Amino acid sequence: MNEPVKKKKVADSVITMTELVLPHHTNQLGNLLGGQLMHWIDICAALASAKHSQRVCVTASVDRIDFHFPIKLGNVVTLISSVNRAFKTSMEVGVKVFAESHQSGTRIHSNTAYLTFVSVDENGRPVNTFEIVPETDDEKRRFEEALQRRKNRLAS
Amino acid sequence: MNEPVKKKKVADSVITMTELVLPHHTNQLGNLLGGQLMHWIDICAALASAKHSQRVCVTASVDRIDFHFPIKLGNVVTLISSVNRAFKTSMEVGVKVFAESHQSGTRIHSNTAYLTFVSVDENGRPVNTFEIVPETDDEKRRFEEALQRRKNRLAS
Amino acid sequence: MNEPVKKKKVADSVITMTELVLPHHTNQLGNLLGGQLMHWIDICAALASAKHSQRVCVTASVDRIDFHFPIKLGNVVTLISSVNRAFKTSMEVGVKVFAESHQSGTRIHSNTAYLTFVSVDENGRPVNTFEIVPETDDEKRRFEEALQRRKNRLAS
Amino acid sequence: MNEPVKKKKVADSVITMTELVLPHHTNQLGNLLGGQLMHWIDICAALASAKHSQRVCVTASVDRIDFHFPIKLGNVVTLISSVNRAFKTSMEVGVKVFAESHQSGTRIHSNTAYLTFVSVDENGRPVNTFEIVPETDDEKRRFEEALQRRKNRLAS
Amino acid sequence: MNEPVKKKKVADSVITMTELVLPHHTNQLGNLLGGQLMHWIDICAALASAKHSQRVCVTASVDRIDFHFPIKLGNVVTLISSVNRAFKTSMEVGVKVFAESHQSGTRIHSNTAYLTFVSVDENGRPVNTFEIVPETDDEKRRFEEALQRRKNRLAS
Amino acid sequence: MNEPVKKKKVADSVITMTELVLPHHTNQLGNLLGGQLMHWIDICAALASAKHSQRVCVTASVDRIDFHFPIKLGNVVTLISSVNRAFKTSMEVGVKVFAESHQSGTRIHSNTAYLTFVSVDENGRPVNTFEIVPETDDEKRRFEEALQRRKNRLAS
Repeated sequence: MNEPVKKKKVADSVITMTELVLPHHTNQLGNLLGGQLMHWIDICAALASAKHSQRVCVTASVDRIDFHFPIKLGNVVTLISSVNRAFKTSMEVGVKVFAESHQSGTRIHSNTAYLTFVSVDENGRPVNTFEIVPETDDEKRRFEEALQRRKNRLAS
Repeated sequence: MNEPVKKKKVADSVITMTELVLPHHTNQLGNLLGGQLMHWIDICAALASAKHSQRVCVTASVDRIDFHFPIKLGNVVTLISSVNRAFKTSMEVGVKVFAESHQSGTRIHSNTAYLTFVSVDENGRPVNTFEIVPETDDEKRRFEEALQRRKNRLAS
Repeated sequence: MNEPVKKKKVADSVITMTELVLPHHTNQLGNLLGGQLMHWIDICAALASAKHSQRVCVTASVDRIDFHFPIKLGNVVTLISSVNRAFKTSMEVGVKVFAESHQSGTRIHSNTAYLTFVSVDENGRPVNTFEIVPETDDEKRRFEEALQRRKNRLAS
Repeated sequence: MNEPVKKKKVADSVITMTELVLPHHTNQLGNLLGGQLMHWIDICAALASAKHSQRVCVTASVDRIDFHFPIKLGNVVTLISSVNRAFKTSMEVGVKVFAESHQSGTRIHSNTAYLTFVSVDENGRPVNTFEIVPETDDEKRRFEEALQRRKNRLAS
Repeated sequence: MNEPVKKKKVADSVITMTELVLPHHTNQLGNLLGGQLMHWIDICAALASAKHSQRVCVTASVDRIDFHFPIKLGNVVTLISSVNRAFKTSMEVGVKVFAESHQSGTRIHSNTAYLTFVSVDENGRPVNTFEIVPETDDEKRRFEEALQRRKNRLAS
Repeated sequence: MNEPVKKKKVADSVITMTELVLPHHTNQLGNLLGGQLMHWIDICAALASAKHSQRVCVTASVDRIDFHFPIKLGNVVTLISSVNRAFKTSMEVGVKVFAESHQSGTRIHSNTAYLTFVSVDENGRPVNTFEIVPETDDEKRRFEEALQRRKNRLAS
């Protein structure tokens, strides 16, 4: 009794979040806490999977995330997420993080993250989700890579 | 010694914010607090004006905001802001707020807000900002209306 | 089946809030965020309307607010609200904001705000509220002005 | 080089804080966390001592606090503090806490707390504060009791 | 109809909390707010009493707490709590607070606090808790002192 | 001019954090947000690396984290971290997460996480850290595994 077969587009799952780095997001050096950024990444990915599946979605795993650049107080962080591929009840979501200084006009692509979410019902039980159809070349590449990453996760 | 004459586009000032309504944003009925929404509107508008002016910007005024619909725990709030018109050191920013249930797939345009921001230097003193050039018909209409609203504000 | 006719006094709706501006309320310049102040204004007004109506009250609108002065880290913000006039299910609430430095002993009247709240039942539906009786000259003046502001709101 | 001799009145040190108990102040039973209330008591007392001494003040001690009543989500907590007595660099501050339901119209005096604060300079070193002059009978009684409590503290 | 007689060990109630002092825990001098520390003490003690009683526990009282040392931004605060003695439905919990600089390697015992908690059922009514058995000499000393402190509390 | 050669023990880097899951840590189903747990994991690991290196440490990477169990409102989360191996300026830190219900007495090992931190000076530049010496069999095994994981990270 686990229904959906409807197909949906990758473009319909895109979420854009923008956050200003305020004092309460920073460590004692005035830089964004790594854990605060992970928190934003998780919310941004949860929303993309919820938008696709029309369900509450819970985090099943987060792939490795590298932090190459310190992000400073007053910087603006933009996160863009979308569902790369939907499996039975789970989805791989990709999140790109950009850090920007409006003052200097600089913008760097600071992180990329891949997370797996499971769509659940009111009792927290997994339910089937919709198929997703990649349309652009980038979406198709990510769709293929998501399958490979899933195989690696299951193998490890 | 107050420099910029460079012209910039409205499209380059657009900010999109997405927020999930969590328990700590709600009142005792489980609805989003009006003041929390105002806080998000202010941040979203501040970022659009900072992006345009490449300066820290401070809130000078908020026009009347109407709240027509309760926004519920678990809803997703999307805010989209852009600079409607730049004056000497100040800018009018428009913010559109949408409230969405990923579960039901409904999305309503819940609020529109107009705020005025002033671009400031490191000492908090007003500095001239860039001219802004509206390109689309909507941008041109808002550019004209912003002037009218400014006249109303100065008259009141 | 919508009951109250009891009359209540303006003085019985007064709420006084005091807030210390701490690092987590500030922007990257060390000044109070405009949106944080709006959040406090909304709570302070909600409490005055709830005290008058003995109901949970929800924000219906906020009139224009001007921000003339930066409020600094370590300043003390005092907000005083009361119901200016009660209509059928809605009330106009006025909020005065004072910013003070205990160190220098200075105190400025930094903002005035007018908000409309609606009293609601457990299901969020509007319910009639009590009449309010202004007693002092100031209360009577605000009672008259509130009617004028309401007409302006409905006309705009 | 430690200056003030000016005398100030108890009434000039009074601080009134009002807080709405929101979901993020509560425990898993929906009641106000004891520690959250202690946090508000500390801020309210710090502000009274800062208002009297015109200095940043730091907590030196908190006397025993009893919690007789659970305070519920949606209740309104009012805290009223004033300096009971000023010593050389320290002050005893009394805080009364009231918990109120706007819906039922009930209001209980839930807690009384006595705290000692020290006025400090920019480097955190204690500095002399102003004398305080009790005027009403209640203020005079508290002024006497504060001395007795101080003796008890120093003896224990 | 109020059950437990099982005896439990003090060692089984120990809770260790570690907190990094971040900007949003500090006052305008960059020091930990006294009230924030009280909040942590209350949570740490509540957890020890809940671990012992296997019930939600609510704060009944906090004995006097002295604050001898400023704790700075970037310091690490460790709190260690355990149940000193269980009475019928209440328990005395002791909390030791240490403040540490990882940079300088210094660690001070900054505070000791004694709190009383009551174990409650789902409706917030007191329920009997387990007996506690002190084993080490320190635990036995604290067990005796807890009785004396309780007598002093009831007498005051 | 990059100094330390002193050797330190794994046991001296251990950090224990305990967190009560309160309403403001939960999603709309009343479960702990995955991102909030990541935030705690990051802080706990940062503190272990800071304790070992006696420096501020910044997150360089987080290995994959799996989330097998929902953690509920009112649960108690214990995090235990220690430095597995120190390299030149970086360290691998392991974090074990336990979720516990004091009511039912159940406790599960919910997550294991591996993070890499870099010790930095006041200007945020990497500085050499101390060697670490594993003593127990478990510490020795983790010391070896950390090298293998590092090779995998550099290869990927």
